[in-house]
Amino acid sequence: MTDRIRVRFLPDDIVIEATFGDSLLDAALNAGVFIPAACGGSGACGQCKVKVVQGQVKAESTEKIRPQDRNQGYVLACQTKLVEDVTIEVPMAKVGRKVIPRDEADRMKTMARPMESPITPEFNPMTISVLMNPAAPRLEDNSSDYERIIRELKVNHNLSPVVTSLDVLKVIPNKVREQDWQFAALLKPEHLPGIDPYYQLLNIYPGRKAPLRTAMAVDIGTTSLWGELINIETGEVLARSSRYNPQISMGDDVISRIVFALKKEGSEKLQQVVVQGLNEIINETLEKSGTSRNSINYMVTAGNTVMTHLFLGLYPRFLRQTPYVPVAQNIGPVPAEDLGLDMPEGAFVNVFPGVASYVGGDIVSGVLANGMWDSDLMTLFIDIGTNGEIVAGNRDLLMTASCSAGPAFEGGGLQHGMRAAPGAIEGVLIDPETFEPMIKTIDAKPAIGICGSGIINIISQMLRIGMLNQNAKFAQDLGTDRIRKGTSGSEYVICKAKESGLNEDIVLTEVDLDNILRAKAAMFSGYACLLEKIGLSVEELDRVIIAGAFGSFINLDHAVTIGLLPDIPRDKFSFIGNSSLKGARLAVIDRRLMEKSGDIARSMMNVELSEDPAYMDNFMAALFLPHTRMQLFPSVRLGVYG
Amino acid sequence: MTDRIRVRFLPDDIVIEATFGDSLLDAALNAGVFIPAACGGSGACGQCKVKVVQGQVKAESTEKIRPQDRNQGYVLACQTKLVEDVTIEVPMAKVGRKVIPRDEADRMKTMARPMESPITPEFNPMTISVLMNPAAPRLEDNSSDYERIIRELKVNHNLSPVVTSLDVLKVIPNKVREQDWQFAALLKPEHLPGIDPYYQLLNIYPGRKAPLRTAMAVDIGTTSLWGELINIETGEVLARSSRYNPQISMGDDVISRIVFALKKEGSEKLQQVVVQGLNEIINETLEKSGTSRNSINYMVTAGNTVMTHLFLGLYPRFLRQTPYVPVAQNIGPVPAEDLGLDMPEGAFVNVFPGVASYVGGDIVSGVLANGMWDSDLMTLFIDIGTNGEIVAGNRDLLMTASCSAGPAFEGGGLQHGMRAAPGAIEGVLIDPETFEPMIKTIDAKPAIGICGSGIINIISQMLRIGMLNQNAKFAQDLGTDRIRKGTSGSEYVICKAKESGLNEDIVLTEVDLDNILRAKAAMFSGYACLLEKIGLSVEELDRVIIAGAFGSFINLDHAVTIGLLPDIPRDKFSFIGNSSLKGARLAVIDRRLMEKSGDIARSMMNVELSEDPAYMDNFMAALFLPHTRMQLFPSVRLGVYG
Repeated sequence: MTDRIRVRFLPDDIVIEATFGDSLLDAALNAGVFIPAACGGSGACGQCKVKVVQGQVKAESTEKIRPQDRNQGYVLACQTKLVEDVTIEVPMAKVGRKVIPRDEADRMKTMARPMESPITPEFNPMTISVLMNPAAPRLEDNSSDYERIIRELKVNHNLSPVVTSLDVLKVIPNKVREQDWQFAALLKPEHLPGIDPYYQLLNIYPGRKAPLRTAMAVDIGTTSLWGELINIETGEVLARSSRYNPQISMGDDVISRIVFALKKEGSEKLQQVVVQGLNEIINETLEKSGTSRNSINYMVTAGNTVMTHLFLGLYPRFLRQTPYVPVAQNIGPVPAEDLGLDMPEGAFVNVFPGVASYVGGDIVSGVLANGMWDSDLMTLFIDIGTNGEIVAGNRDLLMTASCSAGPAFEGGGLQHGMRAAPGAIEGVLIDPETFEPMIKTIDAKPAIGICGSGIINIISQMLRIGMLNQNAKFAQDLGTDRIRKGTSGSEYVICKAKESGLNEDIVLTEVDLDNILRAKAAMFSGYACLLEKIGLSVEELDRVIIAGAFGSFINLDHAVTIGLLPDIPRDKFSFIGNSSLKGARLAVIDRRLMEKSGDIARSMMNVELSEDPAYMDNFMAALFLPHTRMQLFPSVRLGVYG
Repeated sequence: MTDRIRVRFLPDDIVIEATFGDSLLDAALNAGVFIPAACGGSGACGQCKVKVVQGQVKAESTEKIRPQDRNQGYVLACQTKLVEDVTIEVPMAKVGRKVIPRDEADRMKTMARPMESPITPEFNPMTISVLMNPAAPRLEDNSSDYERIIRELKVNHNLSPVVTSLDVLKVIPNKVREQDWQFAALLKPEHLPGIDPYYQLLNIYPGRKAPLRTAMAVDIGTTSLWGELINIETGEVLARSSRYNPQISMGDDVISRIVFALKKEGSEKLQQVVVQGLNEIINETLEKSGTSRNSINYMVTAGNTVMTHLFLGLYPRFLRQTPYVPVAQNIGPVPAEDLGLDMPEGAFVNVFPGVASYVGGDIVSGVLANGMWDSDLMTLFIDIGTNGEIVAGNRDLLMTASCSAGPAFEGGGLQHGMRAAPGAIEGVLIDPETFEPMIKTIDAKPAIGICGSGIINIISQMLRIGMLNQNAKFAQDLGTDRIRKGTSGSEYVICKAKESGLNEDIVLTEVDLDNILRAKAAMFSGYACLLEKIGLSVEELDRVIIAGAFGSFINLDHAVTIGLLPDIPRDKFSFIGNSSLKGARLAVIDRRLMEKSGDIARSMMNVELSEDPAYMDNFMAALFLPHTRMQLFPSVRLGVYG
């Protein structure tokens, strides 16, 4: 780590390390130093006022601090960036008395170490752009427009043979003449295994300059859709966008989606709405980055096998009945037009290959991105999503399984759950005396819901300070009006309506808690089972890589406390974020990694947990916080981390 | 020639040769022996009664002959087949006194020698059908449906790599299970120049037996559409069908079609109606032969460059302005679905490659069929159609040109013109004294019009017996009511309403004659010009091959008389019929001949007649019957053939 800054909090004299540019609120939250913060860090509530007593900070001016106070060093923690070592005084009224200062190294370990993909793509986009200026036709050489193009491609660019579609032929005559036979030709090299490449002419762009070329990397999750618009010549991510998968209204999980698909026109409707969602993502990224739609050459999607089937309109019936057979796993490029995607003429879609009915292209994409296929380290890879996927092994052996965790960690099925998007509460600290929460939202936008990492953090803390019992029910005698009876049993108010971005209180209910309990039990029993199959104990793992659509605030202690992650040394964990999307981005930039993913998929051995009686036993044992077998969670039992 | 039969006609004592199984009416017509026959040979008018005085014939019984007459040897010539040498007495009242008996060998030569294609196709259809029965999935081997198919194709059939479309993937799961994993897979080998083949999986047919596989061979003419449904495993033509190209209502010739195409939605309309016409042809051939639509694997079309552009929806504007550039000449297979053709899922269309804007795939197809690309003989090939095409040369050199003849020889633009289809008058003999016609229709159906060969025959005879002058105007003082004033100037009644299959008299008008004059002048000046370019005289030609949508009755003397064909020894001529359709049929059966046609197209040198001032001079000189330079037509001048 570079640019480390030391922050000393008074009066408790807690010293932590933070990173140059971090907000003071983030640093406090990370350190377990409670400062009231109800608006998520947006600067609206003005509660997080602290005093800088030594060192310089970079503070935004705000009307919440009076000029005379500002002169004395007062700032809003959420509007203040750390640029050097500082000492901060937290007003006495705000100090959570039960916060126990921890060893600095320990504290740093509680956050999952962020991990970028170790795989370095080369620039091998799936398309080629060639600037051309063939001789215009004359009576002595009046061969056809198309033959002039393929002749030039062969002679001057060594690209041959070339094929094309009728749609391209239809536009050629006017496009080549628009700028007097100066144009860029867009081609797709076709690499079929075992034969020489040939080239598909996709489109013609009149002009003297090669146009900007982009592609979409997309993760089609059961609950959420995530997309990135990428400049395929530089690898730069031009814009990002995400939203819920609109198929949610036709079923929360893959099984109920399949059931819906088998109804009359069900498959068509599912296909239509997910494409609509993707079109919204395309449009949003184009708008955000001011990019022309014509620049999009292709899309790479990663999704589980059911999502991929539904996206392509493939019949999913045999996915859900033994022996669980997909229609296809290795699917060639599909014209974007055939799917109804708002992409230009000639654009195509590549889907990541899957391994089995419930281990799909998203996990292959994730493995591609996390690099375990190319590493000696014995790795456990956990992708926490509605369809939770698990891979164990290294370059010598990759075993995989999936389990239906449900959408809770993506905010699905929770009263105020949401994706890790702006306004989602991702960091939470609860005052152990007053039970008041200090919250941090993504992008410091007014809170509109709580995302997966926020949920894990809050449940873990509630458990530790006695607000929850191990069956995930609220204590009722705490003397705080934040715990109350709601329409779905007891609930805790995380953010009051007036401080939120909604017109209502943001709450966590006991029904929500039950969903989380089942989700974490499904994940935990899944990797417990898979490791048993391989004959590996958790102690033998070199590392655990966590993926999922969490925010950046996934706290390992909290995740271990609720029994979602195994209780092993925290420095073995890293957090890769949305690895499915990261793998899709790699494939967008380097088509050889897309080809590699076919090898990875073929090398992965799948274990059908639903066919394994041990899985259900494991699941039942895990329906407890953290687990019925407490010996599996020594650090939780001993409370070593405070 | 085999099965020759000698027929002696009394009282003129004319002896001719005929073929076993010929009708007596055909034999008489062919010999120039006039027997009244008004109904075209359908047996309806009863006028062609003659007496068999020696030998046996095979006569259909008819109520037009009284029993007592039948016993004396009377028969209807049109209902009587020749099976051995016979002597026939034509009643005195019916004998055309001016018929001059000709030398027997001469007479035989007047009919163009029918020529079949000398090219023998091998059976290499464009698709492969493979019977399969891969193992059904089990938990131990639950790879996807599609992977099971491609694995089996590779391991047991050596077909790899395989690609497919989303549409096929959509139907695979149910189709493979319909007959318990027994099915036929239909594949298309893709042969791109310079790379190994790969295979496109087109469709799956459940069952234990490979289904019948057929393909359509189609000639897309400017005026007429011709189609054949062919069993691609045996080469058998299962059914034929033809009709006018419905685009006629949007312009008679290629130039006016292009003009129409450039109007708003003109191109779409032209494409739509020609596809509709082809769909009617598909449906008719399926119905006639009792074949299932599902059997159709593909279609091969041959058409001139403009017709091919309009069929595919390609922008035709630059075809008609110098330097006359097509959009494309070598066009890969196009999905039938994209064109709106009523063909099953996976079916595709291959179009014959063209040479230049006005020398298209139809002429390449014709050259493929007539074999001149593989022969030492110096050949003139004339394809007489709306867009008349001419090729001269042999395997060492092929030069080509085209001229716009107009639709007259296909019956287009004539008051009662029609295609060579059942009911078309194709053979005509006019009594030189009474000017009464003896007519023979195709398939001996009641006359409904007159086709190209009928028109040539009738004009030639009218010219010889003084009914027409050399400017193609009727003589007015012949004392026959068959020549009369019509709505378009003078006209000749070929068939009266009561003897026809119409409710009106079938006539030939002076406007019709003018159209014919221009059509034949365009053709004649075309090949005159092309031969001049090569520096070849007509005497140096080893042979002339005539193609066109004529009936079987093209009479060389008649065609020379009107100046359509060059006046050289008649045994140098042969008639190949619709060579464009024949070439398409060859390509349907043997895909290597389709590939060969690409080589042929590339080897052909095109001469743009419209850019050649000599062409217009030649054209003007040919607007005369037979020609203003009579020395070009010695046999017509001398009247050697009677």
